[in-house]
Amino acid sequence: MIEVEVKARVEDPKRIERSIIELGAVPIGIENQADTYYNAPFRDFWVTDEALRIRSQGSKYFLTYKGPKMDSVSKTRKEFEVEVNDAGNMGNILSSLGFSPVTTIVKKRKIYRLGNYFIALDNVRNLGDFIEVEASINDSRNYEEEVETIFKLIEKLGISRVSTVRESYLEMLLKKNKKGIVGL
Amino acid sequence: MIEVEVKARVEDPKRIERSIIELGAVPIGIENQADTYYNAPFRDFWVTDEALRIRSQGSKYFLTYKGPKMDSVSKTRKEFEVEVNDAGNMGNILSSLGFSPVTTIVKKRKIYRLGNYFIALDNVRNLGDFIEVEASINDSRNYEEEVETIFKLIEKLGISRVSTVRESYLEMLLKKNKKGIVGL
Repeated sequence: MIEVEVKARVEDPKRIERSIIELGAVPIGIENQADTYYNAPFRDFWVTDEALRIRSQGSKYFLTYKGPKMDSVSKTRKEFEVEVNDAGNMGNILSSLGFSPVTTIVKKRKIYRLGNYFIALDNVRNLGDFIEVEASINDSRNYEEEVETIFKLIEKLGISRVSTVRESYLEMLLKKNKKGIVGL
Repeated sequence: MIEVEVKARVEDPKRIERSIIELGAVPIGIENQADTYYNAPFRDFWVTDEALRIRSQGSKYFLTYKGPKMDSVSKTRKEFEVEVNDAGNMGNILSSLGFSPVTTIVKKRKIYRLGNYFIALDNVRNLGDFIEVEASINDSRNYEEEVETIFKLIEKLGISRVSTVRESYLEMLLKKNKKGIVGL
């Protein structure tokens, strides 16, 4: 299973939300997420294209590892996640092992489902509003075709292709702060 | 709060168990534990006196970090633990971060409570039978006194002081296998 994902900057989230609902998308839920990203003591995740984060989502907590992108075309990554019962102790374990917190990304995410697509409307603190459209495909040969379909869906919502971004929120926030991960 | 703990090798666990019950100890529970210990890619926990493990206990899983002993007298350590929902994914995250599994210690633990003391009778695979008596004290100045009280309790059970051991099961098992942590 491969996740295909397109993200775009949104200038008028209320209008986009109305368009999403008009297309027949079903609201799934609203999540308040705070993601604290860590860097390793022995390699630089900024260079290796890995990520390690603790997510707080309401009263639930998750530890997630994302490996480097597996090819240059898709955004496919190895990803492992566990739910943990205590974010503070999880942070203490990571710090004791030498991992250091880099930054925390706080966002409010509204999730919709439209057929096979999950649409997230994110309001990200210090970064603004974004839409993420995601689909799962079984065959990587259909990747480009699926990306094109998602682009068309996004255009239907009145968002131009040039608004799409490939960077993660972490990369955007670190660039905005004009700092790399190391030395923060 | 400081944990005071004395451990001793037991030759006849059935007889010891009868003695524990005769002293008035209350059975708390039986736990089947499998502890997989990991070593770090950037420092050797064998040298730094740290430990990182995933414990499977029935259908529950825990990630635990133990720091080095904080002084030469007591066995006090910094310890952080979280419950996780998936041992396999937790292992995948640790492996992806470069940590490597060293060995797994499998034991059946019967737990009793006698006043302020927790008594564990452990049957450890490939190591044999052990008793662990643990108490919590508030003031480290009472440490030696508390150890002496526990020694007397152990002697009441018919176990000689010379049977006591200071090594962890991990250290015992690695020594028995005549291998250090590194290179296993």
